[in-house]
Amino acid sequence: MSASNLRVVLVSPRNPLNIGAVARAMRNFGFHHLRLVNPYSVAYQEARSAVNASEILKTAEEFPALADAIADCNLVIGTTSLGHRDLQHPLRSLEYGARVIRRELATAKVALLFGSEKFGLSNDDLTYCHWLVRVSTEGSMNLGQAAAVCLYELTRKPAIAKPEPRKRATASDLDRITTLLTEVLTESGYMHSRSAESKIRRLMRRLDLPAHDAEVWLGMLRQIQWKLGTTRE
Amino acid sequence: MSASNLRVVLVSPRNPLNIGAVARAMRNFGFHHLRLVNPYSVAYQEARSAVNASEILKTAEEFPALADAIADCNLVIGTTSLGHRDLQHPLRSLEYGARVIRRELATAKVALLFGSEKFGLSNDDLTYCHWLVRVSTEGSMNLGQAAAVCLYELTRKPAIAKPEPRKRATASDLDRITTLLTEVLTESGYMHSRSAESKIRRLMRRLDLPAHDAEVWLGMLRQIQWKLGTTRE
Repeated sequence: MSASNLRVVLVSPRNPLNIGAVARAMRNFGFHHLRLVNPYSVAYQEARSAVNASEILKTAEEFPALADAIADCNLVIGTTSLGHRDLQHPLRSLEYGARVIRRELATAKVALLFGSEKFGLSNDDLTYCHWLVRVSTEGSMNLGQAAAVCLYELTRKPAIAKPEPRKRATASDLDRITTLLTEVLTESGYMHSRSAESKIRRLMRRLDLPAHDAEVWLGMLRQIQWKLGTTRE
Repeated sequence: MSASNLRVVLVSPRNPLNIGAVARAMRNFGFHHLRLVNPYSVAYQEARSAVNASEILKTAEEFPALADAIADCNLVIGTTSLGHRDLQHPLRSLEYGARVIRRELATAKVALLFGSEKFGLSNDDLTYCHWLVRVSTEGSMNLGQAAAVCLYELTRKPAIAKPEPRKRATASDLDRITTLLTEVLTESGYMHSRSAESKIRRLMRRLDLPAHDAEVWLGMLRQIQWKLGTTRE
């Protein structure tokens, strides 16, 4: 995938906070090219002049009509929410659609269209789309959040179960702790016979103790044992 | 996964729009239980009294301290952005972490923590977490967008390449169109010999014509052929 091949296109956005939020999500996920079609100009000016307005907003392009905004794109994808009326278009889940878009982005310019906050993409807008992606949700999404979710999915990495970064304590660590804990419990009167040591050993195994914590626990137990010794005398 | 086992916990949120946005994302993705720890009270009141405030906001619970908000949870997960200082915690990618959380949610209550807009989770907050998930981004995310992306990932379905919903035109449809188009092109003077028909046949095959469009194209070509006939006479 080449992220620089994506054009995020907002059609008739009305709210400066949403325009800013889309730009922020683009920055978060490494996309740069924002296009606005017929934005509510007060909103657009406000978004651009916000203190934290990003480079993406400053270099965003404005177009009077959708056809102009997508003229150089090879693939045009609309986004829609669940209950879209009379769809004449192939509708793909975001999970699957993003995979296709990623593949296309390697060699082609792709436009990803988001409609206005209130009405989404119009039926006329949809006629410019090759197909649509849909985020499967209850109710319609906020524009900035929809963009974040779509761009996240485009850059999503497969969930590889990495080896746990932490190392487990060794059996010998556990044995030292078990012995010491058994002694402490016996000395403190919790256990009346050392025969319960096997119970403590199983208890310790269930803890899933990290290697670097073994010495800490041993130190604590040694101190307790020492204190028990002094008290007794 | 049981979505009702998730507790979304906002620690010290300051902005009513963000609180509202988190609630909206929860509704979008089917989660219901929102908890707020020490929210900026003006913001919280404003979010709750918004015209479109959801049931989620109305039934949200408020706690003075994080320990109280997570007391009944079996697993506590913090969210963090890339550059978090001196992390002493296992850090998992959202993609992998969400898989683990989903599994836990089948049988256990899980708290998913989001820090304040400005500072994220404090080091003290982090000591209550079993581990952390991180969305891999450039720069920090907006709170509402971070929540949307995390909840999306929790409910994300694997990308199954569904059979294309549209049926391709049959070879016999394509042949009828090819023949008609060849005739039209010959009659209109575009082609001077019908020997080019094989070229047209290949051209038609590259179109990937949907079954239900075959009749439309045939109708258009018949009309053109008819008109060419009248013009000629």
